[in-house]
Amino acid sequence: MKFSCKRDQLIRSINTVSKAVSQKTTIPMLKGILLKVNDKNELCLMASDLDMSIEKRMEVSSEKEGSVIVDAKIFGEIIRKLPDGDIEISLDENEKVNIKTDSSLFTIIGQDPERFPGIGEIENIEGQIVFDKKSLIEMIRKTYFCASPEESKGIITGVLIELKDGDMSMVALDGYRMAVVREKTENKEEKNLIIPANTLYEVSKILSESEEDEDEKVTFVLSEKKCVIILKRTKVIMRLLEGKFLEYKKIIPSENNIKVKVNRRALFDSIERASLFSRAGKNNLVKIGMKENIMNINSNSEEGNVSEDIIISKEGDDLLIGFNSKYLTDALKNIDEDEVIMEFETAVKPCLIKPLEGDSFEYLILPVRIS
Amino acid sequence: MKFSCKRDQLIRSINTVSKAVSQKTTIPMLKGILLKVNDKNELCLMASDLDMSIEKRMEVSSEKEGSVIVDAKIFGEIIRKLPDGDIEISLDENEKVNIKTDSSLFTIIGQDPERFPGIGEIENIEGQIVFDKKSLIEMIRKTYFCASPEESKGIITGVLIELKDGDMSMVALDGYRMAVVREKTENKEEKNLIIPANTLYEVSKILSESEEDEDEKVTFVLSEKKCVIILKRTKVIMRLLEGKFLEYKKIIPSENNIKVKVNRRALFDSIERASLFSRAGKNNLVKIGMKENIMNINSNSEEGNVSEDIIISKEGDDLLIGFNSKYLTDALKNIDEDEVIMEFETAVKPCLIKPLEGDSFEYLILPVRIS
Repeated sequence: MKFSCKRDQLIRSINTVSKAVSQKTTIPMLKGILLKVNDKNELCLMASDLDMSIEKRMEVSSEKEGSVIVDAKIFGEIIRKLPDGDIEISLDENEKVNIKTDSSLFTIIGQDPERFPGIGEIENIEGQIVFDKKSLIEMIRKTYFCASPEESKGIITGVLIELKDGDMSMVALDGYRMAVVREKTENKEEKNLIIPANTLYEVSKILSESEEDEDEKVTFVLSEKKCVIILKRTKVIMRLLEGKFLEYKKIIPSENNIKVKVNRRALFDSIERASLFSRAGKNNLVKIGMKENIMNINSNSEEGNVSEDIIISKEGDDLLIGFNSKYLTDALKNIDEDEVIMEFETAVKPCLIKPLEGDSFEYLILPVRIS
Repeated sequence: MKFSCKRDQLIRSINTVSKAVSQKTTIPMLKGILLKVNDKNELCLMASDLDMSIEKRMEVSSEKEGSVIVDAKIFGEIIRKLPDGDIEISLDENEKVNIKTDSSLFTIIGQDPERFPGIGEIENIEGQIVFDKKSLIEMIRKTYFCASPEESKGIITGVLIELKDGDMSMVALDGYRMAVVREKTENKEEKNLIIPANTLYEVSKILSESEEDEDEKVTFVLSEKKCVIILKRTKVIMRLLEGKFLEYKKIIPSENNIKVKVNRRALFDSIERASLFSRAGKNNLVKIGMKENIMNINSNSEEGNVSEDIIISKEGDDLLIGFNSKYLTDALKNIDEDEVIMEFETAVKPCLIKPLEGDSFEYLILPVRIS
């Protein structure tokens, strides 16, 4: 294997595939990037964890085809520290990888490319879903953080993408809160797929960083257990989560007696300040009292307390309710609207945050019992 | 105590005095800021660790004089999270401090101002030193990092400021390396003072951030054990280290047989890359080989190795010598000159880095023995 390329382009490619490099694993192969050069001046970089694999192709000037696995961290650090300009990379007979510039020569240990894990290609195509790229990125941003980060939690570590009758919903939940976002879609098929939330988040980053001249549409090609996205020079294969997602619609309360209209930014800032006194150990508790057209946000700790008032418009009874401040701010910061509706029933029933009109998003947040 | 002021101005004052707030201490008083309001619309903020104390005065609108100690971290976080505008701060009879804006009320616990530690005022004035502000900041930047960070090391945790015959030297060393910088000065007296390096570093930050309309000169007023700087609205009192500094001049080798002229930036970049393979556990070892007009920088580890060549001009014998890469890069990054002279004697004698002409700086770095 021997090729040369521009440092800056190589860095961009490394950054893309590194999103599939496992940070936590102890398996060396999962920390690697596979470099594969053909005789048509094309380098393919590939990385894979157990949930996704990313391939990135780039033009190089290739002298000899071949392939090798390099440690992603070391390789990335070396290339980033090199000066701008041309880099020549070659593999010698002892599986050593030489990285050469005008004045420097790095040698790192390569690994047998046959040992690259990968998650395989997709088998039988079972349909496809076409997304508008921008709106897909937005939907991921608004949901993925509600999925459970604990690997042991199975299906709820994933985000559900549900298509039916021209409507698309994306849903994530962790047992304490839930996000549902909805969009119209041109896909007419009925489909349900569940993608690990971390994978989906990395996909949204790849899409955000993708080249400007790329298509405004993104196609997910589906098989039974996997799904693949093919961009201009990037291919992402994701493993789907198997099993049945929770019947989330049943959790959304339909009859709430208390409806509050509130300025999103004012509420977010106020909870942020209140959370200064609501740190760990006490569920990040903030108390929200609603009395006529005043919402009072307060919290207290040994260090002190804070109380703030926001003007709201309210239908229904007065209420005092407690929340984990993080769940409220997570939701509020991912909403774009200036004003939102918050619906409540009692102090032990979940709060629903939604837009003034329609149902383009719904955040459901369980309260914390106030003693 | 009761006053009101602008949030932004208060944040700036908090930032200044916070430089004297101890991060590590378990003594609550050392984590506090003393607020002191007089009846002349002036607030004085004060903080102090065992080595320095900082006072900052600002205009406020005062309704009632008084004073209290607040926790620096909590108080700072609250003020930073408040919206722009006016803040009213008052002390109630229970030593509770109320921080009020249009819509919010914070209450934190205050402490008895009598318990503020301080390091006292200076007693008998024993002279003063006038510095050019810019050049003082530069001299500190170029030396403080060479002082020992270990509190147990006594006198070498400080920076020596030495005045004699119109020359000023600043010296710091930690047993492995030494920095000496020199300037002409208008101070004619002979003086030696040793200031803790951390204190001096915080002073350089205060000077860098000081208001634009301030004097270009800085005066250190000296007493036997302390020294004070009075700026327009800021006063810093520093405790001096007592004892005799090392006779540093004796350590500087005067006769070095090998003299090398090298591009500083190229050498710095090269060592930075070599340090990728010279991490902890092995003294960050990089090897520098000089052969005729080529300097070869190399390092190796289990992960790989790197070798780079730089063109130099050299007088004297060839040499192979090892260094802790951090000591070299620390020095090289604080030098402004494009080219430097490196002087060597043997592989076990220190290297001296100095300018092409004169002796405005000298960095002395002990080598690491290469087996």
